[in-house]
Amino acid sequence: MSIYVVGAYSTEFIGKFHPRFIWKGHPDYGKRENPTLEEYILEAVEGVLREAQLEVEQVERGYVGNFAGELFASQGHLGALLAQYPGLARRPFMRVEGACASGGLAVMAAIEALRSGSANVVLVVGAEVQTTVNAKQGADYLARAAHYATQRSLDPFTFPCLFARRTKAVLEETPTTFEDLALVVEKAYRNANLNPKAHMHTVKVSREDALASGESNPFFLTHPEYKSYLKVKDCSQVSDGASALILANERGMEQLRRTPQVQMVGWAYLSSPLKEASDPLRLETTYFAAKEAYQMAGISPKEVQVAEVHDCFSVSELLMYEALQFADFGEGYRLIREGKTALGGALPVNPGGGLLAFGHPVGATGVKQVAEIARQMLGKCGKYQISPLPKYGIAANMGGDDRTAVVSILARLE
Amino acid sequence: MSIYVVGAYSTEFIGKFHPRFIWKGHPDYGKRENPTLEEYILEAVEGVLREAQLEVEQVERGYVGNFAGELFASQGHLGALLAQYPGLARRPFMRVEGACASGGLAVMAAIEALRSGSANVVLVVGAEVQTTVNAKQGADYLARAAHYATQRSLDPFTFPCLFARRTKAVLEETPTTFEDLALVVEKAYRNANLNPKAHMHTVKVSREDALASGESNPFFLTHPEYKSYLKVKDCSQVSDGASALILANERGMEQLRRTPQVQMVGWAYLSSPLKEASDPLRLETTYFAAKEAYQMAGISPKEVQVAEVHDCFSVSELLMYEALQFADFGEGYRLIREGKTALGGALPVNPGGGLLAFGHPVGATGVKQVAEIARQMLGKCGKYQISPLPKYGIAANMGGDDRTAVVSILARLE
Repeated sequence: MSIYVVGAYSTEFIGKFHPRFIWKGHPDYGKRENPTLEEYILEAVEGVLREAQLEVEQVERGYVGNFAGELFASQGHLGALLAQYPGLARRPFMRVEGACASGGLAVMAAIEALRSGSANVVLVVGAEVQTTVNAKQGADYLARAAHYATQRSLDPFTFPCLFARRTKAVLEETPTTFEDLALVVEKAYRNANLNPKAHMHTVKVSREDALASGESNPFFLTHPEYKSYLKVKDCSQVSDGASALILANERGMEQLRRTPQVQMVGWAYLSSPLKEASDPLRLETTYFAAKEAYQMAGISPKEVQVAEVHDCFSVSELLMYEALQFADFGEGYRLIREGKTALGGALPVNPGGGLLAFGHPVGATGVKQVAEIARQMLGKCGKYQISPLPKYGIAANMGGDDRTAVVSILARLE
Repeated sequence: MSIYVVGAYSTEFIGKFHPRFIWKGHPDYGKRENPTLEEYILEAVEGVLREAQLEVEQVERGYVGNFAGELFASQGHLGALLAQYPGLARRPFMRVEGACASGGLAVMAAIEALRSGSANVVLVVGAEVQTTVNAKQGADYLARAAHYATQRSLDPFTFPCLFARRTKAVLEETPTTFEDLALVVEKAYRNANLNPKAHMHTVKVSREDALASGESNPFFLTHPEYKSYLKVKDCSQVSDGASALILANERGMEQLRRTPQVQMVGWAYLSSPLKEASDPLRLETTYFAAKEAYQMAGISPKEVQVAEVHDCFSVSELLMYEALQFADFGEGYRLIREGKTALGGALPVNPGGGLLAFGHPVGATGVKQVAEIARQMLGKCGKYQISPLPKYGIAANMGGDDRTAVVSILARLE
């Protein structure tokens, strides 16, 4: 049973430093509030239906990817929230969760439903609101994606610390340098500056800005061994936003009278033991998921022409190059140095700005990645459009410190 | 593709008033602690593998049903937690959530995977720990299963209030009496007294106890209109615990060299708009899900010989009788008065004690319901075993105030 992408949409991703984000210093402060999780979810549904030119009645079921709505928005039961969209009552909906891979897992659950024939046209929404609390509180919430009982105490900022640990290992044991990480950050912001939906659309960051520590780019960890390995600009954004997809199987495409344009040709997801310390030099779970997905798609990494990778921190992007076999182990840095993964390069990675600068509304990310690959294949990416249209693309979504990995491979049909 | 139950297991469900539950007055207080969410999940896996006589390597993927691990246990990412069980690393796992229907939805997701052929042998675990916080805090957490922004303020105990609203309507507009509700409570405790895994295994409650308000059975709501319609014993238990199932498709049964004994013959799940006020007299979402499940199974409600229904409050059980078409609308009370749903009756309902007295570890419940029906069909229920073995059974799991419903029909094969 083949699976096709019928529609793909993202809301704006916003948060601190975005001109429309409401905070104490904003002229609209006290006059209006930032959108809620509920509003983002419903906006994403509206957007994807419009984008796909679908009537709401054509949607047969749906999945919501969300990590921590109970904490950031005091709201769980998001399947029933999705049913609030006019016309969607009394359909099968559920929310799936796998930390930062929640969105990717929602795509996987949708694919299972389409393959089983239980539904032919399925809606997937990924969403998160995170700006409702301060950074320290948010870091505590996000630490629930790690093994909280044993890893929370690592640092007030648990996840940044886990990836500072990786950064230290990579810098010490491979030829990778701080300059290479600054190149990753520079690329992310440069791409996001071309993407009107990106959280960092209007924020400029040069490689010098990314490299230098200082008031606008401080070190912020307290862990004695790792604190000098991560600065604010090495981190993905605390964003609010939602993304949505409409997927269909062959029968669904017939029902909708659509000609397939973008096909999901390979996918896999895996979890590794949450409590187990990961090898800091490798994203092993992602590597094995990618291997399965390549095998299913029947393509080699060399055939990939666009990638969305989980750059939750600058070092993650380089490790992703290796896990997806774009580079040999320990040599991810070569691709960023050579400019191969830049927008004009041979293999553009995160052309919309990635988690670092498009933003990272946790539950939305895995859905957004697949949506972005599809939009690149359909030529809908405006100023950050890749040309010629890519034939194969890959999306790699990661939960926690590489404890869950979801990899999808898409193909443009001609 | 047919779906079979290969194994079914529940841990003890414990909490306040259970002899092994640790609290200030317990002789072991300060010496040991109650099991954690992690421990419950891993114990359920061990239990179901032993019960099904399976090697861990035979499990191909898994789903975890959990409502609010992030809140009660500071832990999300439960798919990766499941991967901690020795031998389960690097398999596809995800957590699914739909409030109190989280367990039922995990069963649904497992069925999709089996029907799609992506996996042939699948593990389902439902788990929740709730006793880590006091009752008021717990009520606030659980209110995230309702539309928090508009319904939280109804009463400090949001869900009890939503069901007191149903109780008032049912008592005023049908012949149902407080005595009928007391009969529901009495039956639950009587059944639980026969079930060594029940939270209320050692607690006796007569119909007089259930009917009378007083120190051990107080009114506790503050809502002026509803407060006199619900007493403590009308409520399901705040329990900790986990349940697990092994499900397989035909290929899985061949792989395992098993003869099918219990088959899932019908199922459906639906969500209604979270924010929408429900008809207090009916469980409409459950009714429509049940209708679909009966149709798929090709049986009528008359053929059901055992049922597990979501008796989150005493009134819910009577409304469930109607939603599952065991009684006409407004006439559920007749069944409890006539003793039809008692253990020795023609259609035993919640023979193990239900949510009222077996207990209600939220995410476990939907899994436990299916597990209990399977165990009844296999003759494994000891003192609360139905005889002769039932041919058809139904499980109805509800999320929030009937905003998500999951219904499963099982058949014993001969």
